[in-house]
Amino acid sequence: MTAGDHAAPHIEILPVLGIGELRQGDDLAAVIAEPAPPLQDGDVLIVTSKVVSKTEGRMIVLDTADPDAREVARQVAIEAETVRIVAERDALRIVETRHGLVLAAAGVDASNVSRNELALLPIDPDFSAHLLREGIRARLGVEVGVVISDSMGRPWRAGITDAAIGVAGLTALTDPRGRTDVYGNVLEVTQVAVADELAAAGDLVKGKLAGIPIAVVRGVARDGKLPDDGLGSRALIRGSEEDLFRLGTSEAIALGREDVGWAT
Amino acid sequence: MTAGDHAAPHIEILPVLGIGELRQGDDLAAVIAEPAPPLQDGDVLIVTSKVVSKTEGRMIVLDTADPDAREVARQVAIEAETVRIVAERDALRIVETRHGLVLAAAGVDASNVSRNELALLPIDPDFSAHLLREGIRARLGVEVGVVISDSMGRPWRAGITDAAIGVAGLTALTDPRGRTDVYGNVLEVTQVAVADELAAAGDLVKGKLAGIPIAVVRGVARDGKLPDDGLGSRALIRGSEEDLFRLGTSEAIALGREDVGWAT
Repeated sequence: MTAGDHAAPHIEILPVLGIGELRQGDDLAAVIAEPAPPLQDGDVLIVTSKVVSKTEGRMIVLDTADPDAREVARQVAIEAETVRIVAERDALRIVETRHGLVLAAAGVDASNVSRNELALLPIDPDFSAHLLREGIRARLGVEVGVVISDSMGRPWRAGITDAAIGVAGLTALTDPRGRTDVYGNVLEVTQVAVADELAAAGDLVKGKLAGIPIAVVRGVARDGKLPDDGLGSRALIRGSEEDLFRLGTSEAIALGREDVGWAT
Repeated sequence: MTAGDHAAPHIEILPVLGIGELRQGDDLAAVIAEPAPPLQDGDVLIVTSKVVSKTEGRMIVLDTADPDAREVARQVAIEAETVRIVAERDALRIVETRHGLVLAAAGVDASNVSRNELALLPIDPDFSAHLLREGIRARLGVEVGVVISDSMGRPWRAGITDAAIGVAGLTALTDPRGRTDVYGNVLEVTQVAVADELAAAGDLVKGKLAGIPIAVVRGVARDGKLPDDGLGSRALIRGSEEDLFRLGTSEAIALGREDVGWAT
């Protein structure tokens, strides 16, 4: 990174090709070390959460591929992963997970898994990222950063983008606050969610259909070193207390009515 | 793009170095054509909205650099750019602009401009993107895509990321719905906001302090061609009617109270 900013002169995003089917207990570092482009100090691995869920056994396996049975199991799983309902409409539930993430369906996913399976998010994606980083260091002797990514919807915007749910070995949120731009203006509120930008960049080569779950982003490190505040992905989560959108609009309107004694 | 997906095998993000100070009336295509890495068919230019605002004269120029006077002017400008207040707390206002964008401070910005200036967003960023694309074609004979980017905050997430507010020459929102993954699962809701992912990727080389307002993303096109649905950035805007977060939580609670005759 150039002094204090998150800018870098030239970045490459490389797919990790040849990642086959993964199962519980597979060593993700070993699986990646084999087919990856030769990794370098300062590379950032962008890893789709699904492959972490598979190797960590965070899968629900049904004894049937019946779509209705699977949907029932999915709804049960969403409830189990939810600590707080943020908004819902029809079958769509946007909830806060145990990680503090606000996600549709609590991140429970039925795509890119077998038709009798459902994937749950990793229990502790920062720790998963840490283990992968350690594993790559042990096998290849290189210091990489790791971002575990998941797709997220956004209020007011159509479509999903990938964002970071687990981070190791790099600073997820840069903080140039208090610094000045070239005109002398003090930058007051421009913390940049670099790990989310890395996750989004990785998705440009990964894709949802292409069967490429892992990418390497090269060039964000200066002299092979990534800045790291040790906070992992936690810095990216804004607590619900300070969020202006801690509840969906319909839910908040209902709360306002109840508040003044109007039975709903 | 590989058949129908948005995946690509290898992407580069290159900074456009040597963009000097820009003024109203400057020909952005000419300014970029000179210092850019040699552009190729299918390259995507990621252009910070600020430089478009400068060349299009979307600046407020005060006769003083007094911070208080500037703040007053900023609040007036925010009001003029706002069609709907979504949420506010203290000095922070999150509003819908005439473009349909939901943005803090209506995109009115006091960074990376002179200390007596404020930047407004371009009037029609899709048209600005279109003009730049045409200008590059006329000067260099290459077909590029253009994404005009601006930084956006997100509910539930700390920090900002760059997103696309203007798009020309490429499809902003891919739609693999109805297609199946390798397991035979039908993908139902996974529209991908590729233009937002491109904007985020571009920010990895641009940065807020580095004085690099433009980047080139190379490698998303297949055989030099970018898919283009002609919709520009409009596809990325989810109308407030169908948004679960069309109002901030406090605003919606107040609305619920009023709704049942409780004076606020």
